[in-house]
Amino acid sequence: MEFSVWAPGTSAVDLLVDGAEPRRLVHQASGYHIASIDPDHGQRYRLRLDGGAPLADPRSRWQPDGTLGPSAFVDPTVWTWTDEDWSGLDSSAPQVLYELHIGTFTAGGTFDTAIVELPRLATLGITAVEIMPVSQFSGGRNWGYDGVFPWSVQNTYGGPDGLARFVDAAHAVGIGVLLDVVYNHLGPEGNVLPDFGTYFTDRYATPWGPALNFDGPGSDDVRRYFIDSAIAFVQDLHIDGFRLDAVHAIVDPSVRPFLAQYTDEVSATARSFGRSVLLIAETAANDERTLRPTSEAGCGFDMQWNDDFHHALRVALTGEQQEYYKDFDGASDLAKTLVDRFVYTGQYSENHQRSHGARVGHHNADRFVVFSTNHDHIGNRAEGDRLDVSVGFAQRKLAAAAVLLSPFTPMLFMGEEYGEIRPFPFFVSHHSVELVDAIRQRRTLEFPDQDWSPVPDPGDPATMASAVLRTTGSSREAALGALYRDLIALRRGQPALTSSAIDEEVRETDGVIEVRKGASTIVFNFTGRTIPAPPGQVVWSTSDVDYGAAGEDEEIVERGLSPWSATILR
Amino acid sequence: MEFSVWAPGTSAVDLLVDGAEPRRLVHQASGYHIASIDPDHGQRYRLRLDGGAPLADPRSRWQPDGTLGPSAFVDPTVWTWTDEDWSGLDSSAPQVLYELHIGTFTAGGTFDTAIVELPRLATLGITAVEIMPVSQFSGGRNWGYDGVFPWSVQNTYGGPDGLARFVDAAHAVGIGVLLDVVYNHLGPEGNVLPDFGTYFTDRYATPWGPALNFDGPGSDDVRRYFIDSAIAFVQDLHIDGFRLDAVHAIVDPSVRPFLAQYTDEVSATARSFGRSVLLIAETAANDERTLRPTSEAGCGFDMQWNDDFHHALRVALTGEQQEYYKDFDGASDLAKTLVDRFVYTGQYSENHQRSHGARVGHHNADRFVVFSTNHDHIGNRAEGDRLDVSVGFAQRKLAAAAVLLSPFTPMLFMGEEYGEIRPFPFFVSHHSVELVDAIRQRRTLEFPDQDWSPVPDPGDPATMASAVLRTTGSSREAALGALYRDLIALRRGQPALTSSAIDEEVRETDGVIEVRKGASTIVFNFTGRTIPAPPGQVVWSTSDVDYGAAGEDEEIVERGLSPWSATILR
Repeated sequence: MEFSVWAPGTSAVDLLVDGAEPRRLVHQASGYHIASIDPDHGQRYRLRLDGGAPLADPRSRWQPDGTLGPSAFVDPTVWTWTDEDWSGLDSSAPQVLYELHIGTFTAGGTFDTAIVELPRLATLGITAVEIMPVSQFSGGRNWGYDGVFPWSVQNTYGGPDGLARFVDAAHAVGIGVLLDVVYNHLGPEGNVLPDFGTYFTDRYATPWGPALNFDGPGSDDVRRYFIDSAIAFVQDLHIDGFRLDAVHAIVDPSVRPFLAQYTDEVSATARSFGRSVLLIAETAANDERTLRPTSEAGCGFDMQWNDDFHHALRVALTGEQQEYYKDFDGASDLAKTLVDRFVYTGQYSENHQRSHGARVGHHNADRFVVFSTNHDHIGNRAEGDRLDVSVGFAQRKLAAAAVLLSPFTPMLFMGEEYGEIRPFPFFVSHHSVELVDAIRQRRTLEFPDQDWSPVPDPGDPATMASAVLRTTGSSREAALGALYRDLIALRRGQPALTSSAIDEEVRETDGVIEVRKGASTIVFNFTGRTIPAPPGQVVWSTSDVDYGAAGEDEEIVERGLSPWSATILR
Repeated sequence: MEFSVWAPGTSAVDLLVDGAEPRRLVHQASGYHIASIDPDHGQRYRLRLDGGAPLADPRSRWQPDGTLGPSAFVDPTVWTWTDEDWSGLDSSAPQVLYELHIGTFTAGGTFDTAIVELPRLATLGITAVEIMPVSQFSGGRNWGYDGVFPWSVQNTYGGPDGLARFVDAAHAVGIGVLLDVVYNHLGPEGNVLPDFGTYFTDRYATPWGPALNFDGPGSDDVRRYFIDSAIAFVQDLHIDGFRLDAVHAIVDPSVRPFLAQYTDEVSATARSFGRSVLLIAETAANDERTLRPTSEAGCGFDMQWNDDFHHALRVALTGEQQEYYKDFDGASDLAKTLVDRFVYTGQYSENHQRSHGARVGHHNADRFVVFSTNHDHIGNRAEGDRLDVSVGFAQRKLAAAAVLLSPFTPMLFMGEEYGEIRPFPFFVSHHSVELVDAIRQRRTLEFPDQDWSPVPDPGDPATMASAVLRTTGSSREAALGALYRDLIALRRGQPALTSSAIDEEVRETDGVIEVRKGASTIVFNFTGRTIPAPPGQVVWSTSDVDYGAAGEDEEIVERGLSPWSATILR
């Protein structure tokens, strides 16, 4: 294999392979130092720049001993694949996404233990899992947004070998695998990139640390670094696409933005070896350009997350008005998203203290990913408590229906499909005690009103342990499980009900949203009142006895639609 | 009139009018403090925020005593207008622009003394003058990019009264007036804006000081401040358009960028009172989006400056390779601009150390403003020396022809039209001695190789005085004067020669550029050799005896095309 290291300001780069003599790489005018090598899979190595201390490789694909240890060579030919028949995700086909965190998805916390759950997700109707970031971070406990080796796969999850097995198993049951990737910053510990090149810039800042250099001197190679990492995941690990974290935090006024180059090149390269990729942006910007084609001054993503939908839904269910929720008024805003995709399409936002968003209605609804919760909207709460503990059972079912009967692309957060009530709090395990102390302190300061109960300590192993999914076998779980299964089956079996290609008529009055779509009417009752049913026969309802949980105060109202319910009439 | 001040963080704003009792403005929830007043034109006033020291008004339209003095009310109804028949500049009509600096354009250095020159420019064929920034700056000597009151007109130039007379006189001879405006920073002395609101941000920086807040909290009103200033210039001072300084230095990742909102609103508002505006961006970004319509994710400018053309032309004439010139190789790059508009359309640039530019060929050539020199490319040289002193007479004429026989919109820099050889060095007159010392020192450090002759002292009044235009009546001036007059007449009389709507065929070989356009061929000989003439009859040439200056080593070559010449054949 050709081994190369971008280190334009370094005269001499030595490759230090365990048990071998140091080898001086050939310094090319391009700033890359190269050698042709033939390493074994898993063989450990480091790099020495101009005689300095040995460092891990920025393009490390495996840090078997963690962020501070050596890198290890990866030979993709050692992996066995059985997914010849897997045709990849089709961005124009309906998708049901499922966000999961490998470390807490199962008690084992690895790719291998996660594999066991895949058939269950396939039965549920999930088309793709979206795995929270797996690039190597410090220790074994992290959401993943503190990764420092974007090419690598977390050792405690099973490393690249584990990911390869997981992807193969997912493809075997018809599930695609999307990776959540972070291109807006690197984690606070173990980041070797600044030693190698102009990866960072002080022209901009992010809330999480120095900004990456996508537009200054040397940025062509910084872009290559990230784009090529994605291509390597597609080519060698059969990854089906990416969810790019917080792209609104990437400041890049370039004529050809990094993100546009990324979507163009990752898509084209995947196509060149017969694969397709689904590219999803997480963005809070409500920016029309995210989905616009790159040939028309856009960034070319297939889909983007739609936080406005979540916020409107949450407020419709709980009436919360803290922080960003103050911008939303509930059901009427939720109805607006069904027409305009976003609530904020250019009007003034109290939260942002400026006009926010743009009109995006010309982009199909299925290009927007919606959810009743996700890792952020749980974990950014002081105790990391799920929606399940904030609202009653009827509301909880209505939330599921609002997402799964929408024309958008739905995404579940792991455990949601059976009403997991365990939290998903923030947790870290950096090696630096000072760093963990600082994070603990910052976390506490973020919630000044949280004086009645302590904020879970992000550095305590028990905090991550509290997030591990654990079914209880309750009737509530069974009822919710049936609801999710039926809703996803409805989506698949009756595409006209949610297809974003079919025009819908949306009306909201006093908390009741009526959506007419073809011959069907869906009524979302976001009130505590029983309301009159519109004309037509009830063909499905969240208040059906099938979804009643024993011990819950739930009833089917004969005349009218139940409080906090979703009903389909025809 | 309704008087208003945006000061959202201030409880009490007092209006202190000379000779009147302080008056407390009404604080509105919007953050504006307002009053209905009926002031006299020129009456001086200040503002007191929460009992602090009196300050000038951010929206001051007149600082009769300079940046540090009080503001003065402006009553536009005192101005007399005779331009009822002026129909405004038509962005689709051919333009010949003329950049001038009021302080050095005439010995008097005012709008009124500049008026005297307008008939001469009209005779020459100039369609619009582009006035270097006139917003109030400290003292009387400045290029204008240190302005601190964007709504105002420099007192030493004659203030708004003088500008009104100048614009009326320009319109009377058929010349439009464009203002160079600076929205990327404010000058280093006399800036009161931070006392009033969140005008600035520390999220970004500019080479010249803190960046303006076009995307953060409060930015709606910061945008209003600049957009409304432009509208006021159009409405009250009959300004025909704007040249926006260095828009590439405005970092604004907004969904709806300030620049897009600006072009939309300034154009629409001008139209609403029956006027049109020409909006030109200065940008080094080679960004396709600058001219793209705002409805298609662009910034919506009518035209943009084309520095690549200048650099390629300069290198073709002088072979210079210092600083940004190292990216250009002369005639072949110049030929590329005739096809692609820019030299850098995405390829790697040594100067930027990254890929640079985008393809813009779908935008008509006349939307790009070209020049053989301008204030920057003169003034950013250590001694501020013009092209005239770097090249011989034949090259000098070739430069004029390259600009004026191009399909682009040509712009002259004041004095160029007769071959002014006096410099245009950098000069300032801030009140702070320390500030002037720092600028002097920085200026010297910018030119480490300039040890054989001192860099002109920017703070010395003689430096500005050296830049004042002064014709000598030489035969060289007469010859160049005839050349410019004839070239502009050719452009106007034979539109097919330069029309950007007509396809052209461009070929470059060993420094000779041949442009075929309809029945005509233009040959630009960027070599010191006499070259064979292509088929056709010579109908015009820079080496014509009409443009020979006595005492110059100039000759008309019978057989072939002269060294450093431009020739039209048919």
